[in-house]
Amino acid sequence: MHCYKLILAYDGTLYGGWQIQPNTKSIQEKLKQALFIIYPKWDLHPIGSGRTDAGVHAKGQTAHFKVPNKIDPERLLLSLNGLLPADIRVRSIEEADPNFHARYSATGKEYHYYLHLGKVMNPFLRLYCWQVKKEINIDLLRQAASRFVGLHDFTSFANESHKGAAAKNPIRHLYRLDVCVTDEGIRLEFEGNGFLYKMVRNITGTLIDVGSGKLSLDELEAIFEAKDRRRASQSAPAQGLFLIRVDYTKNSLSI
Amino acid sequence: MHCYKLILAYDGTLYGGWQIQPNTKSIQEKLKQALFIIYPKWDLHPIGSGRTDAGVHAKGQTAHFKVPNKIDPERLLLSLNGLLPADIRVRSIEEADPNFHARYSATGKEYHYYLHLGKVMNPFLRLYCWQVKKEINIDLLRQAASRFVGLHDFTSFANESHKGAAAKNPIRHLYRLDVCVTDEGIRLEFEGNGFLYKMVRNITGTLIDVGSGKLSLDELEAIFEAKDRRRASQSAPAQGLFLIRVDYTKNSLSI
Repeated sequence: MHCYKLILAYDGTLYGGWQIQPNTKSIQEKLKQALFIIYPKWDLHPIGSGRTDAGVHAKGQTAHFKVPNKIDPERLLLSLNGLLPADIRVRSIEEADPNFHARYSATGKEYHYYLHLGKVMNPFLRLYCWQVKKEINIDLLRQAASRFVGLHDFTSFANESHKGAAAKNPIRHLYRLDVCVTDEGIRLEFEGNGFLYKMVRNITGTLIDVGSGKLSLDELEAIFEAKDRRRASQSAPAQGLFLIRVDYTKNSLSI
Repeated sequence: MHCYKLILAYDGTLYGGWQIQPNTKSIQEKLKQALFIIYPKWDLHPIGSGRTDAGVHAKGQTAHFKVPNKIDPERLLLSLNGLLPADIRVRSIEEADPNFHARYSATGKEYHYYLHLGKVMNPFLRLYCWQVKKEINIDLLRQAASRFVGLHDFTSFANESHKGAAAKNPIRHLYRLDVCVTDEGIRLEFEGNGFLYKMVRNITGTLIDVGSGKLSLDELEAIFEAKDRRRASQSAPAQGLFLIRVDYTKNSLSI
């Protein structure tokens, strides 16, 4: 068998998320359908690095599929982009090790979350950020962000999965959480060895409550220690979240 | 009478253009409807600096309306943005001289045109640029662009208006036409005292034909001299065009 690794970018606005599911269209389904048109004899099944939720965007989602014959990646890239809707693009395709698995081989991920702080929304960003109308103290935001960096039990910041189960292991290593001030707001950059369900959005919602003065740093500490999702803030909306990159190089992201 | 000046940004994707017209929705209509909800007793009629065509975007379209009473611009800004669809935003409102006219007082305009040159389209830019798949020679593009700068008869680059009439005076002063190389392509920056119908898009289409080697610089010269729209290249698509700014300061843009 040959294994091919794809890097995809997509605008998640009109999708129910990455994963194939009933009653809503998904990125994985569109990709699978396009592969079926190109290779009707093979029932190719693309597997992603993880599901992105409804409305979440990606600049570097990674997927793989296995196929009995060698194929031409350049030709397949053109064919797929000819068949896929314009809000989903395959950025690259390359042959990978036969044992490569988009999910299980992943050693790290990078997410960005975009916050818009202007009084008037930029109409071109309306689907790609969360408009926060409260005054945000950047120093407080940075102090709160630093609390998340490192090896922690993130139970208070993880929702139960779709199957109603909490993650077996809630410990994750967040390599960095940078607060970058942009022209129209803030970009939060998350990089870690893995993320629990809704973890980035739950951390973002909590950070904004600290930055706006609704929560103190002491209360943030208590939320961490409670190991109870109900203690943290509301999840930030999906539309501000971008999966930027999935890493597969062993230890490259470790500090 | 009091006169108020508005600066608007809008994503033109879903509109038939700025101007009110039958059988399609327009920015002007949405703004007029919102003003009517706020001031039902006054039939306020916003006038723009000019029409932007179907699918053309704006970061700084300017409009004005006249009203018998003094109003609070800050409150009106919030009310309008509460009523307008999210793809149209009023960026600012201020009281202007009673004789101010968004169209007749304008002394200059700035437009940007975005070209995407990557092999794979960025899905987040798909509605905001023109994907050019040909190889573009930037030096040639710059040489061709410089031919347009200055005071010229732009007949060859002007379409007839909706009423089927050519402009009475086809002479315009283009202050600058800068070719800016970006991460994913080229931004063409046009600044001038005024623009004929479809002039920016016609110049852009012609520039791309020179940059890709389809037209020589001598042929460009001949197109200018022919004063015949049929000689120039096809119009570049609407979605790459942004009205950035309308200028009202006398002589500020002149060189």
